[in-house]
Amino acid sequence: MTASELNDLSRLCIHTITTKPWAIEVAIEKYAAAGVKGITIWRQWLEEKGPVEVGKMVRESGLEVVSLCRGGFFPATDKAGRQAAIDDNRLVIDEAAALGTDLVVLVCGAVPGQTLAESRKQIQDGIGTILDHARAAGIRLAIEPLHPMYADERSAINTMKQANDFCDLFQDPMIGVAVDVYHLWWDPDLKQEIQRCGKADRLFAFHICDWLTPTKDLLNDRGLMGDGCIDIREIRGWVENTGFNGFNEVEIFSDSWWQKDQDQFLESIKKAYLNDS
Amino acid sequence: MTASELNDLSRLCIHTITTKPWAIEVAIEKYAAAGVKGITIWRQWLEEKGPVEVGKMVRESGLEVVSLCRGGFFPATDKAGRQAAIDDNRLVIDEAAALGTDLVVLVCGAVPGQTLAESRKQIQDGIGTILDHARAAGIRLAIEPLHPMYADERSAINTMKQANDFCDLFQDPMIGVAVDVYHLWWDPDLKQEIQRCGKADRLFAFHICDWLTPTKDLLNDRGLMGDGCIDIREIRGWVENTGFNGFNEVEIFSDSWWQKDQDQFLESIKKAYLNDS
Repeated sequence: MTASELNDLSRLCIHTITTKPWAIEVAIEKYAAAGVKGITIWRQWLEEKGPVEVGKMVRESGLEVVSLCRGGFFPATDKAGRQAAIDDNRLVIDEAAALGTDLVVLVCGAVPGQTLAESRKQIQDGIGTILDHARAAGIRLAIEPLHPMYADERSAINTMKQANDFCDLFQDPMIGVAVDVYHLWWDPDLKQEIQRCGKADRLFAFHICDWLTPTKDLLNDRGLMGDGCIDIREIRGWVENTGFNGFNEVEIFSDSWWQKDQDQFLESIKKAYLNDS
Repeated sequence: MTASELNDLSRLCIHTITTKPWAIEVAIEKYAAAGVKGITIWRQWLEEKGPVEVGKMVRESGLEVVSLCRGGFFPATDKAGRQAAIDDNRLVIDEAAALGTDLVVLVCGAVPGQTLAESRKQIQDGIGTILDHARAAGIRLAIEPLHPMYADERSAINTMKQANDFCDLFQDPMIGVAVDVYHLWWDPDLKQEIQRCGKADRLFAFHICDWLTPTKDLLNDRGLMGDGCIDIREIRGWVENTGFNGFNEVEIFSDSWWQKDQDQFLESIKKAYLNDS
């Protein structure tokens, strides 16, 4: 099945990190004025006004909060560090509830030099520990597998297969996956693992941007849709084929774009969304 | 099974690219004087003297040529480009024979923006086309899966599972795999795919270096063994457990090390080889 045609912005969501120079009130106003319908809020954008106030502002603008980014980072070299991570994840869940979304994205974490096996065990323990709290708050948790180049310091979960295997450990409707094309596009098993994810009703979120060649920085050199090599439309087709009809979330970390005029960037995002996603 | 103890340099091989500032005659002299036993030669180091002369120099020094790097890069956007790649791979095979090694490492290639499925098909076609020539020359071909961050421009073969699946397509004793810890360390399926590789008698080469955190450059910021996060000893144990008792090949691309005194670098390599590999 091919992807649906994107004829309007009704399923376009933007992450606040994408337009990093904009404060939360600016992002909300600009996105809403541009006809964007969804917003995923990164925690830094809650710091000044708090989640209740931000949630109110978003609703008044007509936008929908798609998710809160991000919980996770469970691994640590000592018990105190792991407990601090658990406490912080409980806080993220409370913030999400106060904000008025039912989804938290988890970047699961890793500790440089700690074995991936140990980090994966600590991630499992961490998610297991916060699960009751998430369920009580009505907050779903989306494990986001990260590109293998982040395995040593950002996430020890690096493929869709791993994310699916992880979800299988819990078999819980509150735990699912955030599919991000940037991290996963290269994987020859991607199609089948997206199908597996959908069959288990755990495909919670879909993030888009593009892979640039050459990539000049491992973290902040992501591209606008259409500027790189990812066949976003093909992957979106696989995602929609599972029954997913949620937002297409634009999440771009880019030193280059952040230095430019953000109003023009927002226009470029709208255009790339309609033409190259 | 744990890895063997590395008490001497009898299985140490160095790639000429590792000490990039050294011309071929310098590299041969320095490696031999340092007690290194193997050398893998990159094609650039054949340009001046040619493979016959270089092979003679290596043998006179007491070193062994472990492999010639590198063939591959089969995908191209047009037929002429793909034919040029095939011609060049036939030449690499001839050079390897003239040099006096029986192994060519293949970095299989990719074309920015071309679909990975198409590139993989072109790689399969390319290898199939040169196979008779390789067999006639007695040259084995080692497919080296590259880290997923190179999928768009260097290789569309990015995991051990893919490399094994590729070899299964041919079922030919001349086609195997080069296992490089830098590209593969993050993969949760690595142990089982190394076992699969060994069972099929196709584990042809083992390359070592380390993954640095942070990694400042996608290509030329690899680390000396022990300076990064890779559990080289564990992976070496898996490799040896298949029956592999060939060389441990040090292949480091590093702008940082290349700017330093190469004699001191060679001493650091020996020390890291014995203590951190």
